[in-house]
Amino acid sequence: MQKKIIPDIVIGRLPKYLQTLQQIKEKNIYTISSSDLGEEIGISAAQLRKDLSYFGEFGKQGTGYNINILINQLKIILKADRVWNVIIVGAGDLGSALARYQDFSKYGYNIVSIFDTSEEKIGKSIGNYTIENAKNMANKVKLFDVKIAMITVPVSEAQNVVDLLINAGVSAFLNYAPIFLHVPEYVKVESIDPISQLQHMTYYL
Amino acid sequence: MQKKIIPDIVIGRLPKYLQTLQQIKEKNIYTISSSDLGEEIGISAAQLRKDLSYFGEFGKQGTGYNINILINQLKIILKADRVWNVIIVGAGDLGSALARYQDFSKYGYNIVSIFDTSEEKIGKSIGNYTIENAKNMANKVKLFDVKIAMITVPVSEAQNVVDLLINAGVSAFLNYAPIFLHVPEYVKVESIDPISQLQHMTYYL
Repeated sequence: MQKKIIPDIVIGRLPKYLQTLQQIKEKNIYTISSSDLGEEIGISAAQLRKDLSYFGEFGKQGTGYNINILINQLKIILKADRVWNVIIVGAGDLGSALARYQDFSKYGYNIVSIFDTSEEKIGKSIGNYTIENAKNMANKVKLFDVKIAMITVPVSEAQNVVDLLINAGVSAFLNYAPIFLHVPEYVKVESIDPISQLQHMTYYL
Repeated sequence: MQKKIIPDIVIGRLPKYLQTLQQIKEKNIYTISSSDLGEEIGISAAQLRKDLSYFGEFGKQGTGYNINILINQLKIILKADRVWNVIIVGAGDLGSALARYQDFSKYGYNIVSIFDTSEEKIGKSIGNYTIENAKNMANKVKLFDVKIAMITVPVSEAQNVVDLLINAGVSAFLNYAPIFLHVPEYVKVESIDPISQLQHMTYYL
């Protein structure tokens, strides 16, 4: 029940901590101070210590964080220590690029299928995958206990696809369609929308 | 100077308002109440009204917002009423998908070039583009007054590419490399990192 009290904004920063620690570990560095780690992540040492304190005692006064231990703990907290089955819905340019993106499997996201409704696309190959008929989505979700879907369909289809997948058991969506998705409280949505991010920046230019 | 006092989190929501209003307009709807608009965006009517109040009086009591007027005002505020020249650095799967993504030009982001360092890629075609030698980046940036770059290079190269582009005059980066970029205060960075967003969601699963 501890989970309930940790602000979502803190949870949202943990993946950045994990990512940065993994990059530091690749340089064969084994301990790091909160100020050096904060600098790499672009956050103050105080904020970093406060964020991590929600989950227990990680650093020792004077010796900094043990990088291996912190990586392992963050993986457990974020459930990044296991394999998740994932589907991609929409086999356009973006869906195809996602299907070929090797970092997903490296980080435990096992893409089991990529779906489309287009007769021209179904049966064609993308990397190691054969594009499957979207009619089979719900079956595949149940068969492989898929909890996560990446949505790269057009705006006009996104909500329908998501409704269907929620019914089949999906509860987390990485949404590339530039539209707000209406979902039940327990379902998580993270959106990726380069146009919005560009407009956010041009305000300041 | 008014800009200084508007929280960045408010600015970050404006593109979503604009996007949603544009989608509503396509259904030939001309006015909308703050509660209906809030519902479409997934935000409370009170928050919506508060956000927009930073920029003046948009809605009339009882009649709601005039959608055309609000769209035009948001475009002006976000500087989305003009054409921005943009470059893509890195012609892998993702960079290629971005070069073919038609919504960028639709929203005023004119991709002038896509660059790579690989001899095998330089000179090849992606959609309407020919992949250019990354050595020519700085020249192209100056020639076309490019202020925005999309970065799809490997982690190990991202900071160097960004440093070079800042020197050439770029001041906004859409960063697809999963690394924190160190930039001067006046430079804006927005990052897109699906792994971090997936990890954010799996925490709750």
